[in-house]
Amino acid sequence: MAGNANDRVLREDSGRFDPMANALRALAIDAVQKANSGHPGAPMGMAEMATALWGAHLRHSPGNPHWPDRDRFILSNGHASMLLYALLHLTGYDLPMEELKRFRQLHSKTPGHPEAGLTPGVETTTGPLGQGLTNAVGMALAEKLLGDEFNRAGHRIVDHRTYAFLGDGCLMEGISHEACSLAGVWRLNKLIALYDDNGISIDGAVAGWFRDDTAQRFAAYGWNVIGPIDGHDTAAVDRAIGQAKSSIDRPTLIVCRTTIGRGSPARAGTARSHGEPLGAEEIAATRKTIGWEAGAFEIPDGVRAQWHAIERGAAREAVWNRAFAAYRAQHPELAAEFERRVAGSLPVDFRETAAALMARASQASDAVATRKSSQQVLAALAPAVPELLGGSADLTGSNLTDFPGCGAVRGGQPGGRYINYGVREFGMAAIMNGIALHGGYLPYGGTFLTFSDYSRNAIRMAALMKLRVIHVFTHDSIGLGEDGPTHQSVEHAASLRLIPNLDVWRPCDAAETAVAWVHALEQPQRPSALLLSRQSLPAQPRTPEQVIDIQRGGYVLSDRPDARAVILATGSEVALATAAQQLLDTQGIAVRVVSLPSSTVFDRQPKQWREAVLGRDLPRIGIEAGVTCWWGQYGCVAALGVDGFGESAPAAQVYEHFGLAAHKLGELVAAQLAAHR
Amino acid sequence: MAGNANDRVLREDSGRFDPMANALRALAIDAVQKANSGHPGAPMGMAEMATALWGAHLRHSPGNPHWPDRDRFILSNGHASMLLYALLHLTGYDLPMEELKRFRQLHSKTPGHPEAGLTPGVETTTGPLGQGLTNAVGMALAEKLLGDEFNRAGHRIVDHRTYAFLGDGCLMEGISHEACSLAGVWRLNKLIALYDDNGISIDGAVAGWFRDDTAQRFAAYGWNVIGPIDGHDTAAVDRAIGQAKSSIDRPTLIVCRTTIGRGSPARAGTARSHGEPLGAEEIAATRKTIGWEAGAFEIPDGVRAQWHAIERGAAREAVWNRAFAAYRAQHPELAAEFERRVAGSLPVDFRETAAALMARASQASDAVATRKSSQQVLAALAPAVPELLGGSADLTGSNLTDFPGCGAVRGGQPGGRYINYGVREFGMAAIMNGIALHGGYLPYGGTFLTFSDYSRNAIRMAALMKLRVIHVFTHDSIGLGEDGPTHQSVEHAASLRLIPNLDVWRPCDAAETAVAWVHALEQPQRPSALLLSRQSLPAQPRTPEQVIDIQRGGYVLSDRPDARAVILATGSEVALATAAQQLLDTQGIAVRVVSLPSSTVFDRQPKQWREAVLGRDLPRIGIEAGVTCWWGQYGCVAALGVDGFGESAPAAQVYEHFGLAAHKLGELVAAQLAAHR
Repeated sequence: MAGNANDRVLREDSGRFDPMANALRALAIDAVQKANSGHPGAPMGMAEMATALWGAHLRHSPGNPHWPDRDRFILSNGHASMLLYALLHLTGYDLPMEELKRFRQLHSKTPGHPEAGLTPGVETTTGPLGQGLTNAVGMALAEKLLGDEFNRAGHRIVDHRTYAFLGDGCLMEGISHEACSLAGVWRLNKLIALYDDNGISIDGAVAGWFRDDTAQRFAAYGWNVIGPIDGHDTAAVDRAIGQAKSSIDRPTLIVCRTTIGRGSPARAGTARSHGEPLGAEEIAATRKTIGWEAGAFEIPDGVRAQWHAIERGAAREAVWNRAFAAYRAQHPELAAEFERRVAGSLPVDFRETAAALMARASQASDAVATRKSSQQVLAALAPAVPELLGGSADLTGSNLTDFPGCGAVRGGQPGGRYINYGVREFGMAAIMNGIALHGGYLPYGGTFLTFSDYSRNAIRMAALMKLRVIHVFTHDSIGLGEDGPTHQSVEHAASLRLIPNLDVWRPCDAAETAVAWVHALEQPQRPSALLLSRQSLPAQPRTPEQVIDIQRGGYVLSDRPDARAVILATGSEVALATAAQQLLDTQGIAVRVVSLPSSTVFDRQPKQWREAVLGRDLPRIGIEAGVTCWWGQYGCVAALGVDGFGESAPAAQVYEHFGLAAHKLGELVAAQLAAHR
Repeated sequence: MAGNANDRVLREDSGRFDPMANALRALAIDAVQKANSGHPGAPMGMAEMATALWGAHLRHSPGNPHWPDRDRFILSNGHASMLLYALLHLTGYDLPMEELKRFRQLHSKTPGHPEAGLTPGVETTTGPLGQGLTNAVGMALAEKLLGDEFNRAGHRIVDHRTYAFLGDGCLMEGISHEACSLAGVWRLNKLIALYDDNGISIDGAVAGWFRDDTAQRFAAYGWNVIGPIDGHDTAAVDRAIGQAKSSIDRPTLIVCRTTIGRGSPARAGTARSHGEPLGAEEIAATRKTIGWEAGAFEIPDGVRAQWHAIERGAAREAVWNRAFAAYRAQHPELAAEFERRVAGSLPVDFRETAAALMARASQASDAVATRKSSQQVLAALAPAVPELLGGSADLTGSNLTDFPGCGAVRGGQPGGRYINYGVREFGMAAIMNGIALHGGYLPYGGTFLTFSDYSRNAIRMAALMKLRVIHVFTHDSIGLGEDGPTHQSVEHAASLRLIPNLDVWRPCDAAETAVAWVHALEQPQRPSALLLSRQSLPAQPRTPEQVIDIQRGGYVLSDRPDARAVILATGSEVALATAAQQLLDTQGIAVRVVSLPSSTVFDRQPKQWREAVLGRDLPRIGIEAGVTCWWGQYGCVAALGVDGFGESAPAAQVYEHFGLAAHKLGELVAAQLAAHR
């Protein structure tokens, strides 16, 4: 058979079952059973790891999940969600037993996979494997940088660790390579990852498809590797974490040998324990095996008391609060700035900065690539918005994502505001998510638009988690020219616009680029993608009112009395639209030109605005250097675009080849008017 | 500064310049200069590596790029395209000097990045980093499996190697981890990768963002690692390749220390040599440094003769042809089957198999999940289509991608028709591309639809390369229920449909699933994605004519005389559409129901068909459990769908929560009719 579903991987086992770990086990199997859906095996296998970490090391405050200096805990193997819910419940987070009983039910706080923002204490949304670990790398980096920036002699107000649990799946995923390689480069010694090495994945015993020497692999990344240790020996895990905490210049991986579904006599060590309820009979047998006599969803008082951590957490937090008060006394401005940064508020004078920037940009008259306009925006914003933390996936000189004096983030050195992510698009995106989740920074990063494909699921996760993360995607169409079809985005703009809660901007000139940046920064609950041109684009003339209208996402750029049709255009094709308008003028055909720099923002405008811009009864024609079907939702009767893959040639020739030209657009409009007369 | 663009990494250099390598260097710098665009640095740095491999080891036949038993050469760092074009030109492929002079020009055979199918001798399209290497793993696996299947005692008709060149970028990308981990597991000893270890990427010296001990990393994967060696010492590279060829159970990585832009006095060892022309002055200085006196695009006769390989290649091929003739004499049926398989023709009786399958599927009446219907199709097809090579990214029991007797592909064992890819979606997709490019197999692989995000760029590459690869994406909507929003596809169906040349199917029952599979297999120039439900779906009744119509991608499933509206539906929502139709019947509102299992196929039908199905003057209402804007292109006046992220709950409740119900659809239709009266 193809899988090895019946292979059983059993490790040496002391046979001792700790009551604290058993409480986690029992809650997991009971909740999965009640939901008749879920993953009992991983929580059962990681119960001792969790007991060691949460029982003795994790510095958190269940009464205040937002304490800025708490340790972060990331469950990268998010299907083990019941482990996390059990931990949160038992230590005292606002997650009552009723919620555990509603595991995987509509509107519960215990969804199938952990969701940040929904459940107190859940630091990031996990499930898509490998990304939680990568978020953790971003969090650990943010902690380091924030400490570099705010700590002062005698005052370590930023000083916490990031812990991640992960499984075989996370380690098979490519993104684990990108993230862990960077964690090594950055020497993130306060990152401690515990690997649930259970030898089983959904298809069976992993030996048939996963034989990495993971310890050696992580040594190659410059990590401190501990183990393999017995992951069911709480004391051994405790000692390993203690060792890990003493690492001064390397992140740590603790390899914990475990048995998936530990405690279930029939299913321990098998893939079958992974993703289905144990069933009443096997649950009874498990209770017997592990020596757990309490009923379903019952926790004996003694065990509950052992887990309870509200007061200990509050005491920790109080110590920090006193330290912060001392810091504030000595560094009042820094303390205020720290609080602003952690709260995610923009600088008080941001609106003024933004207004000056937009005014300047709206007066620009030179033809300039929007990637270059974007860099000018960054140069203006970066000094005023110190939380901006830039970067690129090894395309800095192409994306133009750096700014004067940004300073590089480098392992073993303090500070820096620019991250060379290397050729790691997916890793970059998920690390940015981790940085945003940690707080204190507003991350942005660049690559070519085509390679948004590589990072797509992390962009989606940012949208799902409502994170302010900004993607700078340059070389946004066939307009990049010679690099050819592998590098030419055709479907990407349309495709990104489909991700819920993601703002997509495709500005046509410096003014729209400036507004796009400002708008993106002002969205505390939403990521943005800026799609920027490689090639120069002419500046469009606008009235001051029109400059303000840009933030609506779509507006009338150039109107004509008695317009008979509306041309809708985005980005680099707006100039073709206005040129076509002028050509049509000479033929006595009056048309309106609408610029649609952000359809996602435009779609959120009141109906009145949208109808006023689009016109109610005029035929609409769209133009964008990408797939034309996208225009259907705006009721376009025709569109110019690119419905196949691109071509390698100088940009002007590629445009001509695909018929993206003002005269072609003019002809199309005239033909449509003739046909619909 | 953020980058290290001025950092220079110079390795010890013998200072000797071999004329054969210089010919590659000179052609690369001349072509880039003439195009005023391109990447000279990598070809200059890899010139000796290429000379060693192509001069002494590569078993190919420039006169016949399709010789089945040729060695495969993959340039994973595809921006070094001029190196490959120079090699193809000099060894005698049909790539005249005129084409090199038209580097990166419209309709030349020398686009910016190598394109399979366009240029003779280019084995795969590269540019998006890491994927070429992964294609190479797929090719090496295909070679092994094809050999297992067709070689017989005394007859090794399949016996070639796969060579890949790759750079730092490929090794930073996560997909390199997925692919190389699997190559180790599979013990692909005939895969030989040469790493252009030049210490430079676009942002500068890689030490700031890439410090992996790559040799150690690959040892952890179970590879044979050779070096670091001096990549400019042709003899050393030659020896290393010789060693690599003797590996009996491990793939080999040869670490070649090189200097990017070698030969350019001003730019060698710098990022500046990477992606821009050297300029006339520096080219002159380079010619002097390397001792190359020939003019631009001129190759001295002696050097040309050294490179010329047509006759040697033809002789190699003749030896193989004789061996194949002997094989045919002894195993005539196997030989015929081999030729069919390599040609990519389906079995002669495929149509009959397909017809029987579709007839059976169209008679099914039970409610069954389309993933389960898909598995039934596989069970029927697999014995008749031995080239089917299945797999899953560790979700076999969920994707239902295995079939009886498929047998697992395992390292160190012969054969198998099912690949446990592990949790490596992107790697799976790009390995499938490599398998399809190699020939002999028809690969398919499964994961959850949401994780098509992870593999998206490889799906795009399959579409760009026109490869017959089939993606089985199950759990295709909110209908998966409890796993929640991280796992619920909302934008993915619409988003995949935007990729040019990709067929996307979302069947509504067993009959449509069978047609989807058959259609996908019958597309020699196009990949397909099958979007399948987790939940059971009722069988729709159809006339025999309607069963035939399914292959049109869209057809009238249930009509009414005097229909006043058309409901368009896909997949799991088709049953809601027919239920709504019946509800509306009771209100005296007659509507037509159109099933649209594949909009991409439907869009290719003649206009007459499309208009007949959609109706010309009837209001259209769409329903799909995904983003509603997608329906705009079909002129829908309204649509039911999901425009935000999903929810974790039992599937029926999630459907209800989002208002995806027959009565809601009925109300929407009635309201639209009232509004448009």
